[in-house]
Amino acid sequence: MKYVGNKVEDLKIAYIGGGSRQWARVLMRDLALTDDLSGEVRLYDIDYDAALLNEKIGNAVSTYEDAKSEWKWKAYKTLEEALTGADFVFISIIPGTFDEMESDVHTPEKYGIYQSVGDTTGPGGIVRALRAIPMIEKIALAVKACCPDAWVINYSNPMSIFTRTLYAVWPEIKAFGCCHEVFAVQKLLVRALRECRGIEGVDRTEIKTRVMGVNHFTWFTEAKYRNIDLFEVWEEFLAKYEKDGVLDGRDDNWINRHFECAHKVKFDLYKKFGYIAAAGDRHLAEFCPLDWYLSSPERVYNWKFSLTPVSWRRKNLEEANAETVKLANGESKLKLTPSGEEAIDQMRALLGLRDLVTNVNLPNRGQIPNLPLGVCVETNAAFTTDCVTPVASGDLPASIYPLVARVAGVQEATVKAGLARDLDLGFAAFLSDPLVRIPQEDAKKLYDEMIDNTKHYLTEYFK
Amino acid sequence: MKYVGNKVEDLKIAYIGGGSRQWARVLMRDLALTDDLSGEVRLYDIDYDAALLNEKIGNAVSTYEDAKSEWKWKAYKTLEEALTGADFVFISIIPGTFDEMESDVHTPEKYGIYQSVGDTTGPGGIVRALRAIPMIEKIALAVKACCPDAWVINYSNPMSIFTRTLYAVWPEIKAFGCCHEVFAVQKLLVRALRECRGIEGVDRTEIKTRVMGVNHFTWFTEAKYRNIDLFEVWEEFLAKYEKDGVLDGRDDNWINRHFECAHKVKFDLYKKFGYIAAAGDRHLAEFCPLDWYLSSPERVYNWKFSLTPVSWRRKNLEEANAETVKLANGESKLKLTPSGEEAIDQMRALLGLRDLVTNVNLPNRGQIPNLPLGVCVETNAAFTTDCVTPVASGDLPASIYPLVARVAGVQEATVKAGLARDLDLGFAAFLSDPLVRIPQEDAKKLYDEMIDNTKHYLTEYFK
Amino acid sequence: MKYVGNKVEDLKIAYIGGGSRQWARVLMRDLALTDDLSGEVRLYDIDYDAALLNEKIGNAVSTYEDAKSEWKWKAYKTLEEALTGADFVFISIIPGTFDEMESDVHTPEKYGIYQSVGDTTGPGGIVRALRAIPMIEKIALAVKACCPDAWVINYSNPMSIFTRTLYAVWPEIKAFGCCHEVFAVQKLLVRALRECRGIEGVDRTEIKTRVMGVNHFTWFTEAKYRNIDLFEVWEEFLAKYEKDGVLDGRDDNWINRHFECAHKVKFDLYKKFGYIAAAGDRHLAEFCPLDWYLSSPERVYNWKFSLTPVSWRRKNLEEANAETVKLANGESKLKLTPSGEEAIDQMRALLGLRDLVTNVNLPNRGQIPNLPLGVCVETNAAFTTDCVTPVASGDLPASIYPLVARVAGVQEATVKAGLARDLDLGFAAFLSDPLVRIPQEDAKKLYDEMIDNTKHYLTEYFK
Amino acid sequence: MKYVGNKVEDLKIAYIGGGSRQWARVLMRDLALTDDLSGEVRLYDIDYDAALLNEKIGNAVSTYEDAKSEWKWKAYKTLEEALTGADFVFISIIPGTFDEMESDVHTPEKYGIYQSVGDTTGPGGIVRALRAIPMIEKIALAVKACCPDAWVINYSNPMSIFTRTLYAVWPEIKAFGCCHEVFAVQKLLVRALRECRGIEGVDRTEIKTRVMGVNHFTWFTEAKYRNIDLFEVWEEFLAKYEKDGVLDGRDDNWINRHFECAHKVKFDLYKKFGYIAAAGDRHLAEFCPLDWYLSSPERVYNWKFSLTPVSWRRKNLEEANAETVKLANGESKLKLTPSGEEAIDQMRALLGLRDLVTNVNLPNRGQIPNLPLGVCVETNAAFTTDCVTPVASGDLPASIYPLVARVAGVQEATVKAGLARDLDLGFAAFLSDPLVRIPQEDAKKLYDEMIDNTKHYLTEYFK
Repeated sequence: MKYVGNKVEDLKIAYIGGGSRQWARVLMRDLALTDDLSGEVRLYDIDYDAALLNEKIGNAVSTYEDAKSEWKWKAYKTLEEALTGADFVFISIIPGTFDEMESDVHTPEKYGIYQSVGDTTGPGGIVRALRAIPMIEKIALAVKACCPDAWVINYSNPMSIFTRTLYAVWPEIKAFGCCHEVFAVQKLLVRALRECRGIEGVDRTEIKTRVMGVNHFTWFTEAKYRNIDLFEVWEEFLAKYEKDGVLDGRDDNWINRHFECAHKVKFDLYKKFGYIAAAGDRHLAEFCPLDWYLSSPERVYNWKFSLTPVSWRRKNLEEANAETVKLANGESKLKLTPSGEEAIDQMRALLGLRDLVTNVNLPNRGQIPNLPLGVCVETNAAFTTDCVTPVASGDLPASIYPLVARVAGVQEATVKAGLARDLDLGFAAFLSDPLVRIPQEDAKKLYDEMIDNTKHYLTEYFK
Repeated sequence: MKYVGNKVEDLKIAYIGGGSRQWARVLMRDLALTDDLSGEVRLYDIDYDAALLNEKIGNAVSTYEDAKSEWKWKAYKTLEEALTGADFVFISIIPGTFDEMESDVHTPEKYGIYQSVGDTTGPGGIVRALRAIPMIEKIALAVKACCPDAWVINYSNPMSIFTRTLYAVWPEIKAFGCCHEVFAVQKLLVRALRECRGIEGVDRTEIKTRVMGVNHFTWFTEAKYRNIDLFEVWEEFLAKYEKDGVLDGRDDNWINRHFECAHKVKFDLYKKFGYIAAAGDRHLAEFCPLDWYLSSPERVYNWKFSLTPVSWRRKNLEEANAETVKLANGESKLKLTPSGEEAIDQMRALLGLRDLVTNVNLPNRGQIPNLPLGVCVETNAAFTTDCVTPVASGDLPASIYPLVARVAGVQEATVKAGLARDLDLGFAAFLSDPLVRIPQEDAKKLYDEMIDNTKHYLTEYFK
Repeated sequence: MKYVGNKVEDLKIAYIGGGSRQWARVLMRDLALTDDLSGEVRLYDIDYDAALLNEKIGNAVSTYEDAKSEWKWKAYKTLEEALTGADFVFISIIPGTFDEMESDVHTPEKYGIYQSVGDTTGPGGIVRALRAIPMIEKIALAVKACCPDAWVINYSNPMSIFTRTLYAVWPEIKAFGCCHEVFAVQKLLVRALRECRGIEGVDRTEIKTRVMGVNHFTWFTEAKYRNIDLFEVWEEFLAKYEKDGVLDGRDDNWINRHFECAHKVKFDLYKKFGYIAAAGDRHLAEFCPLDWYLSSPERVYNWKFSLTPVSWRRKNLEEANAETVKLANGESKLKLTPSGEEAIDQMRALLGLRDLVTNVNLPNRGQIPNLPLGVCVETNAAFTTDCVTPVASGDLPASIYPLVARVAGVQEATVKAGLARDLDLGFAAFLSDPLVRIPQEDAKKLYDEMIDNTKHYLTEYFK
Repeated sequence: MKYVGNKVEDLKIAYIGGGSRQWARVLMRDLALTDDLSGEVRLYDIDYDAALLNEKIGNAVSTYEDAKSEWKWKAYKTLEEALTGADFVFISIIPGTFDEMESDVHTPEKYGIYQSVGDTTGPGGIVRALRAIPMIEKIALAVKACCPDAWVINYSNPMSIFTRTLYAVWPEIKAFGCCHEVFAVQKLLVRALRECRGIEGVDRTEIKTRVMGVNHFTWFTEAKYRNIDLFEVWEEFLAKYEKDGVLDGRDDNWINRHFECAHKVKFDLYKKFGYIAAAGDRHLAEFCPLDWYLSSPERVYNWKFSLTPVSWRRKNLEEANAETVKLANGESKLKLTPSGEEAIDQMRALLGLRDLVTNVNLPNRGQIPNLPLGVCVETNAAFTTDCVTPVASGDLPASIYPLVARVAGVQEATVKAGLARDLDLGFAAFLSDPLVRIPQEDAKKLYDEMIDNTKHYLTEYFK
């Protein structure tokens, strides 16, 4: 890279999972809208053709009239080529195909375990993690070999397990995990301020929150806007929406919505535990004991969030593929609007162009003293030049410690199981998961079946 | 007290719960069999008459031919009188009556939650704790005022919560909690050595174990006899007994036994998590998710441990009362056999007459680094003169951390709820308990009903 | 306070030490130049007349043409009046008079201990601390009583001891200590960038440093400007200036300068320990063993920093007093240039108007894991709305740990001595100070003499 | 090994430094007096002939009439042969010869630094450590390769650095450092009890002490005999002996004694810091700032302890060598009296034959929370079967923290310097040592000269 005035040119970004139809496009838009960075994005994907399509689309975007900077997008055939010399590395991969995800998400339904997402925690998240960990190991070692000074920004799920594994494999890595779920809840507080206090025009970044927990089960233990305690505002907001949920005036048939929620789970958790759970309800519900929210589709329906079936993902992918071809052909164009993601600002901060305090996922080095050292936690951190330092956030409150410590422990056991290729330890983790609220004999059958369904990716476990 | 040669005379022991029919009698026997200690035992009980009966019995025991030392037993009408000048204080109380315990143990059965004991954890343990905490507070403050240098040895359940509360109320207190469950599992290892390796004559205290966890959910993460790794012996023992359990050749109708177990839960936990759970199965099962062992009486029956109904306790109490009268009248005599409890050796060590390394319950000051500071944990400790210091036991292994951290957190939240007289926080703890595996709406109904049943003891919570 | 658009009006700032001739004037200038804050500054001083003069000056400043905001300055007769309702509290006091400082700084010279400042560490700093601690206690308790939600910003020395004591007295206080020494070294790095790399126009805040240590003995263990490792630049800069020091082209007779240094101590420490000590040499030298830099005036002269005699301070005060009268009369005007201090930006961040990551002094809650919990350390912290959270800075490097741990320990012992009014513990601290490199019998004589000289302020120690 | 009843036969003990004239003979006597252990002692020494002489002597001892067990002593030519199959490994080596020690101890005298021992701390200890660390590395790796399950008991100085290095090189090693200095101070307390309270017949092991610090600079922060607070007794004892010291009725010309002290340093430290320093004054003085006790031979003389010149060691060695020949020839016999050392009891405890709570040196895993994790500390530990676990001793008191943290930090920096073969970091450690109270330019000259004198052993540092 090189600095020219207040701009950085010739940045090299490696993108692992470079055939991505979602995050890669987000990055295209955000990079194109960035006027102080430019350079090359190297796309690596096990599906090289998908990466090639993104190469075309990315380079096309650079020619848009409203693009503020020029980026060269290029697909690479090997991970090593893509990484060598990289300044930043994005990880945005799916471990396995929708066939494996089909098993992760839906096999547990036989035993009454419904999963709204199935990629982070619960039976699906754990099995996905066992599949992913050997892959992450390879990535960490490749970064160590090819671009040890690069910053690695992980977007893949299970987020905590990816991030933890990167550090377990190579403790000197400069990596963090990055997730937008917290932002959405900050925006909800913006809305609460508007509706309950009549305060207009507040930006999401003006909502200041003490963030703690694990990814997708993150909590605000304090929230302020200027001199206003947002917990008081939240209680007013909750009083208004508790019964019917926040419906947004859109289609209120929740069964049709696959990524939305009415925040009723969030309200419920607040009433029980006294803090604001800061992720979408689809994620939050998966970290809670099965009977609370996910023991049946009817229960989910009543709590007004949605299960996202893999069939929907498959259909959505078909559409995305069709759109991808159009984009690559030039028949269609990406709309250059800012995504609201923070990747660009994080890079700017790491490059010394600005400061940033935001939430990230990192191994616990004391930022949450009552969780074990080493487990991956989500808290605020200060981003400064070439440096991400978590803030000393303090202990988890007593009411939520049992919920969070348990899942942090399940994740840590899963990482250890994955690194040791130890399916028995994997089952110990599985058994302790809050969703696995079934007789243990059934749990064993379910685990074995799920493992069998993904065994193609677990060859190292069976050596 | 005073030292005469290698003996200590004129010891003053205060016994809170001095009408006790069980522990007080154990102490009578053990003290009478002790040739190097003598003095006075001051009995305090809210049921003064019960204490008076023990006064009579205790003084009678001193006259037995086989008594090796003379103790004066005396009932006191106030806690303060009993404590003033005490060298040791035993706490052995039941918070509330069998009516409250009836509710603790059996009300949850309406929702399919069966509790084998119901005094330590689970819905029963939590509600019992809420009832007990204000009582413990009073005891801690009375110790502070009347005998700040005394050692306080707690025998009451919930053990962890009693011990934690004593320190929370007065951090300088010299207190620990003491429990024999671990010893029984050490004896089981003695048996395993005999049966699997033909080694005879091993004493329980020669079985050396790394102990960690919370009371009644304690684990051996290492176990040695001389140069023999007892985990290997345990696996052989397990292979032999796993299917049918350890039956002892006695009545194998488990439904008739109220304090026994066949160790099948222990074997099962070992197979799943790789470590030896070191308490009776009746206790262990209560710390595990409901569906594992306690979701129905049939399940309990199959796992070959027993539910102890309060009706049995009532009946047993009647018999004990009748026996008490006989003992007090001199119609009957206590049989002076050593109990196997360690209280006398602990006192000896604290008096400088010997050293002792054994397991106790103490707030975590780093003995288990991956549990929060302050929560009450059970580990080994060195007993030396006027000093009990836990050993730096190390982290809980990954496979059992989620199980133990969760319940340690539930206990801590319960203590905070009790100290703050906060029933909402109490419910947050309740909801996170592993046995409360029911829809949350039902959990609320159950909690409210249980609280209502014991409200007579919770007046401070309703102010 | 109240928010009006992006401005905050009606702020209430209490200023303890409100007769200050230095920091109060800095604040006047900086507040006057602030266009988004306004309100009242309440001046409290044991010298009420001095506060009255500042009232006049402050109110005059508000009428300056170039003042961007209006502040009402007002002297109060009691601490309680000044504090009640305050949003911010500045502490900027001198414990005792120049007579006591005369003893602090110059009495040790009899034993060959020269102190360049004498207010932070060394014999002078310790005795000053013993004098100050009872005063700080009173302030902390008054804040607790009168304005428990206010943020307390301490500027007084000894900084670490003031800040630590505030928290020791009332752990819930919202306080931090604030010092500009680090900024000056960041500016030196700006200069090094310019001179060694030809990079112009870099702002001090673009120099990103990992800050750790105790106040006035703070270290940069990493320093970055964009993609440039400033340690490499520092080595070039050092090579250029090591021999003669950085002289600035001004009067090179160091004996005449009382607040300046040639950075030779800093260079020397870098060569020995490998990290950049981030304070003025006058401060740094006082934390090092006496023989390194402060064993004689000649040695100080050769290392090109200066001793600041109290006689100079007295003379300077006279001049400041004369100037004060002129300012109060309107015969003279303050020049409204920004001071470079960060107080305004810190307040803005705490009010939610911006974010800020900067260095502050706070009790160690884990930000430096190899120093004891509780001792006051200086590290970076994130300032967000109503919140200052230190970043998890990591361990002190092995080479500097012995230097820093020792003085952190001396400070902690001093605080404990002060809170317990225990002159013996004070002497234990004194004996362990790096400057007290004299036979211990002499150390005792010196301590006793210094204590005697300030005994008027130590009446509580002699009760 | 094999267990026969309550005895262990066929133990294999490797003794590194097997030509030792002191510790090896102690072990011969103690082993011969042990009736429940027997086996082989494998002697390895770089001076094979010296090992051969001990082989002869050891085997002769086995034939003594008063020997209670039979041990086979055998010299081995390689470390690997000696270690393979060992159950215990003793390390008792001197890094370098008396020529190097001559430099370690006496070169600093040119700069006024007198060292009473010179093997643990101070300039001599640090340079000795730099020489030793590569040797320890080799031993640790050989243990890992040849006998990974063996317990390694280190007797060599610098004790802390040896022990820390063993763990740094191979964290899974089962090792501890063992030192008798604490016992001598416990015996002094026995004497105080006798003289001040008339209590006779107390055994050293009945004196119970809370031990904390680093080896040779260890402190009792509590001391009890039964219900007697020994701090009170110590104050009476001190009052009696403070002026003249404890002279033992022997030759009071201190200059003639090389291993004795009158405990005046200990008394002095008690008066200043409030705790009992638990080692010989010769050791204690070396950890204190130079001017306190060691700035001149006269000062040492007045404090009534002794400098041990290397010339004396040389002469003593000659005598020992002559005696060795006689012992090997059978012209002379060892007197079989118990040494008072604890090695045999430690082995018994590790073999499961008894329990033991005693002081040892181990890396800090939280036993002293206000010292850094990892540094080698001395505290009590519980010895049980195959297990040494330090007790959670608590924080160092404020008055002694600065003294101990500093030297713990110097030791840690020395270990890091040795492992990295980094003489600059070695000098950083050297500069922070309490005895190096000289101008820093002189310190550099001294260090360079000392390094040069031992460069033959430092070849890896100059690569």
